[in-house]
Amino acid sequence: MTRIAAVRVTPIAFRDPPLLNVQGVHEPWALRSIIEVETQDGRVGLGESYGDLETLGNLERARAGLVGLSPFDLNGLTRVVYEAMGTPDVGAPYPPQGDKARASALAAFEVAFLDLQGQALGLPLYEVLGGKVRDRVDFSAYLFYKFGRHKDDPGYPADDWGEALTHDQMVAQARRMVDTYGFGSLKLKAGVFEPDFEIETLRALRRAFPDAPLRIDPNGGWTVETTRRVLPQLLDGGLLEYLEDPTRTLKEMGEVAAFCPIPLATNMVTIAFGHIPETVRLNAVQVILTDHHYWGGLRATQTLAAIGRTFGLGISMHSNSHMGISLAAMTHVGATIPNLAYACDTHYPWQEDEVIEGGKLTISGGSMAPPEGPGLGVTLDRDALARLHRNYLDCGIRVRDDAAEMRKYRPDWSSRLPRY
Amino acid sequence: MTRIAAVRVTPIAFRDPPLLNVQGVHEPWALRSIIEVETQDGRVGLGESYGDLETLGNLERARAGLVGLSPFDLNGLTRVVYEAMGTPDVGAPYPPQGDKARASALAAFEVAFLDLQGQALGLPLYEVLGGKVRDRVDFSAYLFYKFGRHKDDPGYPADDWGEALTHDQMVAQARRMVDTYGFGSLKLKAGVFEPDFEIETLRALRRAFPDAPLRIDPNGGWTVETTRRVLPQLLDGGLLEYLEDPTRTLKEMGEVAAFCPIPLATNMVTIAFGHIPETVRLNAVQVILTDHHYWGGLRATQTLAAIGRTFGLGISMHSNSHMGISLAAMTHVGATIPNLAYACDTHYPWQEDEVIEGGKLTISGGSMAPPEGPGLGVTLDRDALARLHRNYLDCGIRVRDDAAEMRKYRPDWSSRLPRY
Ligand SMILES: [Mg+2]
Ligand SMILES: [Mg+2]
Repeated sequence: MTRIAAVRVTPIAFRDPPLLNVQGVHEPWALRSIIEVETQDGRVGLGESYGDLETLGNLERARAGLVGLSPFDLNGLTRVVYEAMGTPDVGAPYPPQGDKARASALAAFEVAFLDLQGQALGLPLYEVLGGKVRDRVDFSAYLFYKFGRHKDDPGYPADDWGEALTHDQMVAQARRMVDTYGFGSLKLKAGVFEPDFEIETLRALRRAFPDAPLRIDPNGGWTVETTRRVLPQLLDGGLLEYLEDPTRTLKEMGEVAAFCPIPLATNMVTIAFGHIPETVRLNAVQVILTDHHYWGGLRATQTLAAIGRTFGLGISMHSNSHMGISLAAMTHVGATIPNLAYACDTHYPWQEDEVIEGGKLTISGGSMAPPEGPGLGVTLDRDALARLHRNYLDCGIRVRDDAAEMRKYRPDWSSRLPRY
Repeated sequence: MTRIAAVRVTPIAFRDPPLLNVQGVHEPWALRSIIEVETQDGRVGLGESYGDLETLGNLERARAGLVGLSPFDLNGLTRVVYEAMGTPDVGAPYPPQGDKARASALAAFEVAFLDLQGQALGLPLYEVLGGKVRDRVDFSAYLFYKFGRHKDDPGYPADDWGEALTHDQMVAQARRMVDTYGFGSLKLKAGVFEPDFEIETLRALRRAFPDAPLRIDPNGGWTVETTRRVLPQLLDGGLLEYLEDPTRTLKEMGEVAAFCPIPLATNMVTIAFGHIPETVRLNAVQVILTDHHYWGGLRATQTLAAIGRTFGLGISMHSNSHMGISLAAMTHVGATIPNLAYACDTHYPWQEDEVIEGGKLTISGGSMAPPEGPGLGVTLDRDALARLHRNYLDCGIRVRDDAAEMRKYRPDWSSRLPRY
């Protein structure tokens, strides 16, 4: 079997609209890293991860140690990453405080290794991962309150989604999302305005889309008491499919779960294997949003799903702003998870740039089929990579800071939680 | 990718010594099934499972449905097996009462599928499974009280291990095991005699092997109160590495765990993913003995190990009487599990027959390296298979019944538990 000969990590920046969330507002450029793992026989496996300095540093620390490994040696990859992160024991218990940095570095390379496995086999990645249980993976419309344009001129034209600060504007955004992509489920990124206002937005969405499963995600912006107060409105008429991260801590989520009759979902309080025992003990959440980027990769995502199946936890999927490499990886693994019971989140419709050949992947009918491979089934557009890397060098952003961006609009802005 | 063209399941019977346990005594023939999964391009993947009528029936029900699958489509395999077992939803929650029959059928074929994957790749199975974290897998000496010969003449000469009904005879058995195979850990199959007698045997083993980790497995033969009474003796001088299945139910194990300062291990009360939530809730066991044969295969064994790592449960490995196909599979997966912290059980030294080419695999220095593949790295000796299948046809045993065999020696024998 061919061995790994070189590993490249290229930070990129791509255009991102002024989307609002509990922390503030998206900056004009979103950061990401593109991972290329090249074998002696010239194949290139692709991965994609965060582009902040900490992640880039972690990837750099592990990078050289991967040379010489077989792309099938995921345990060897784990050992190299763990050693680079100063925790060499690959069988040690998961730290109860989590290990997101380490798991993120692992995931970035693991997807590229798996891509190489699929290429070596001539099989799509979903087949490497055990075969698909569904032909297409459902995604949800990820709705954001948003400004019409960035505060400072980013050097590119404003997006054509316009402002979304009213209920009607949000319904229009949802309408375009549904018309363009066929999404069946709607998720509202919340924690931006008073809960009562956001719930009114939900009601407007419900009127416009009577049958669509709805979700709201205040990103931990609410107190337990606020959640208790607004819950009757959220429950009214079966408005919600699940309630995502109303509160900020596992303990608070457990307090909410005690009085909340609908499932609580999270990508904030249970984000590592080390968090699971306490999550189970408190029955703090009922749906875990997987994210291969920080759970340790696609195999780890499958393991997480199996833990969910074992403990009666539902499985959905989280997303940050991302390119097509990640979307392909999400779709491949999503196709293999029997108990993936919810439409997955994706920011993908908000991204106009792309780093893969052929441009953006197509979501239609609210779902996407995993590319047919081999491996991930996507390849790097080197001109695009160079252009997006140039964006990174030029944009000056090195760590995402939605709060600082928001202070350009509202100088007194604080991202301290809970907000309401 | 080549598809599966044919699946064959051949029941076999091989010579088994009169080993005693809480149920009774091993019959002269142990039953097993040999699974061959053949692809269109003529490769044969091997599996091995139980040989009782129920298992054979389940394998037969699923067999035909596998034709046409890719050997990489483990989810497709799962679907076929689940449908054959009348539970078609592959993502449904695990039943809390367990699903051993279904998981066993799945495992039998899964190993053969994985063997084919390794063959297709030209890689050893441990590499398909993510790469090895150790070159060799430790095994323990599996010590049994035993009769010198079977009650009825089985048509073959008595084994040369002789009788082991006294402490001295057990020490001699252990000595031979250690001298021949280099085992570093010793496990005493117990529940046969009064606990005080068996603990005296442990003490004799301790005197003869001052540094060897010791285990005792009464197979649920003790009451909680008996366990409480004898525990001081078991703890005296750090006699035990872990205490395996002293009592018969998960609830009782939880009761014992509440007063037992050393880990409780099990292959009896936590034997399915559906058992894990209650196991965790009760903190009933601290070490789970994996067994790919009934946990659903080698990938499921890795998942179980990951659950163990997540919940702070130790991981060891269980064994029934088996051939080299299973030993190879156990060793391959054992090599890939980072948190496999204990020497694995194996009955292999008790088996004189073998169904693989080249005869018995070699355990030395108390450990074994996984065969170098491709795949499992073992191939079927078709003459041996025919001979062992002839044994099956001739021996008349269709369901293992150690109690009935014991009644040939002791007509009043009952296998009712707890015994002591
Ligand atoms: Mg969220
Ligand atoms: Mg046992």
